[in-house]
Amino acid sequence: MSIKAEIIQFLAREMPHSKCIVEAVGSASATVKHPVGPEELRPGGTVAGAVLMAVADVALYVAVLGEIGIVPLAVTTSLTINFLRKPASDSSIVAVCKLIKLGRSLAVGEVALYSEGAPDLVAHVVGTYSIPRKPRDGA
Amino acid sequence: MSIKAEIIQFLAREMPHSKCIVEAVGSASATVKHPVGPEELRPGGTVAGAVLMAVADVALYVAVLGEIGIVPLAVTTSLTINFLRKPASDSSIVAVCKLIKLGRSLAVGEVALYSEGAPDLVAHVVGTYSIPRKPRDGA
Amino acid sequence: MSIKAEIIQFLAREMPHSKCIVEAVGSASATVKHPVGPEELRPGGTVAGAVLMAVADVALYVAVLGEIGIVPLAVTTSLTINFLRKPASDSSIVAVCKLIKLGRSLAVGEVALYSEGAPDLVAHVVGTYSIPRKPRDGA
Amino acid sequence: MSIKAEIIQFLAREMPHSKCIVEAVGSASATVKHPVGPEELRPGGTVAGAVLMAVADVALYVAVLGEIGIVPLAVTTSLTINFLRKPASDSSIVAVCKLIKLGRSLAVGEVALYSEGAPDLVAHVVGTYSIPRKPRDGA
Repeated sequence: MSIKAEIIQFLAREMPHSKCIVEAVGSASATVKHPVGPEELRPGGTVAGAVLMAVADVALYVAVLGEIGIVPLAVTTSLTINFLRKPASDSSIVAVCKLIKLGRSLAVGEVALYSEGAPDLVAHVVGTYSIPRKPRDGA
Repeated sequence: MSIKAEIIQFLAREMPHSKCIVEAVGSASATVKHPVGPEELRPGGTVAGAVLMAVADVALYVAVLGEIGIVPLAVTTSLTINFLRKPASDSSIVAVCKLIKLGRSLAVGEVALYSEGAPDLVAHVVGTYSIPRKPRDGA
Repeated sequence: MSIKAEIIQFLAREMPHSKCIVEAVGSASATVKHPVGPEELRPGGTVAGAVLMAVADVALYVAVLGEIGIVPLAVTTSLTINFLRKPASDSSIVAVCKLIKLGRSLAVGEVALYSEGAPDLVAHVVGTYSIPRKPRDGA
Repeated sequence: MSIKAEIIQFLAREMPHSKCIVEAVGSASATVKHPVGPEELRPGGTVAGAVLMAVADVALYVAVLGEIGIVPLAVTTSLTINFLRKPASDSSIVAVCKLIKLGRSLAVGEVALYSEGAPDLVAHVVGTYSIPRKPRDGA
């Protein structure tokens, strides 16, 4: 099974309520898409900021898992988001994550968030992930 | 109508899908609560990080509205969250926001996030809000 | 020798060019002061942002060392600063740091920055520190 | 006079103590270099974090000025830095800034920090700049 398929299966168990779709994984990066419908919108036609943060967080997680394999205990330790432009109300959100550091205990990635089909960033995220130490005896 | 009641009414229209409960508003601060049930949990009994970010964002919004009144165009411009401890799986999340700056065009606040009834922070947020300029002619 | 005296001695070796003065250490917190003179100012009488960041970083370091002892390998891993108000050009900068998490491998603290004698924050910082694992054999 | 020359002249007045060298400006980006000598180092041969933050701040400033012209009142409002790798003790620091938003009142940029000649990031910064409104009467 490919790492992408493994991650998709893992997320389906780990985050059964998430609507995120894993589009690509590999080379210390990941692309994740999230559909936008009435539940994601706020009056005025803006995609809720919480949706952008959630998609970015998943993209980071997928990029990290793509490098270290399925490690359920990897957790986000921090996330900084800058909201840049109003996302389109009728387009999916696309999050493209690139890891800029992958250490033994800490990974750092940045995420560019777009409205699908539009070139400008709607938000930019930097996040850090804590990677658990490998158990020495398989316990 | 009190500013708290106004804000509750406004949020019911603005964020009809949000489960956030406004507990207190005033003195450049706000307290917002979010129930935790199966939808908010991830396997292992952790409250999803996205829930924490969303509640913090609402607490900031409520604290800002409590000072400037109902201004629908105020928008989050940035948010930094540090995840500190695993939240309890059977307690609501409580977010306590204090504004540390309220300028004409920018507000900055910090948010302490707790599992209800426990003293330790589960996460800490700093966020910035852009406040639209007042129209000069009432338009 | 008190932990405060130990830290002062350590910083004199570690950061010989720093003008930071350790005012207080203890209870997961620290207060550090930095004089403001011509070198710290920019035209217009503003204290350079770089000075504020540097003082906050030292305050975090001192608060962490106050808890874990003199551990030279503790390093800042991230820092977020919000600049809130123009500092006075004729007052020292005072940084008050409180740790909000002290884990085995990561510490998180926030720092309030003031112009000495004035009540309003000039800047607010959240920073994270990586704490090296204790060697098991003294190596 | 080119915008690069204008900025260099302006910075010489505005930040007379800074050692930053403007290498390039244009297309919503800027490259700034900072020499590393004994004053920038900490024992163990690490470049002080404060130096990295200061260079990133200048790179952002230069990129913003390159787009909006010499506007002395533009000020950093926030900055998030992630420290990724130990910089070399014998190489200059190079900061490459790209603006990801240039609005009327707010600019956002990210900065990649390198040790000159090495491909890996030593730190990553996202910063925001407040741009003053144009006076309506030249006052």
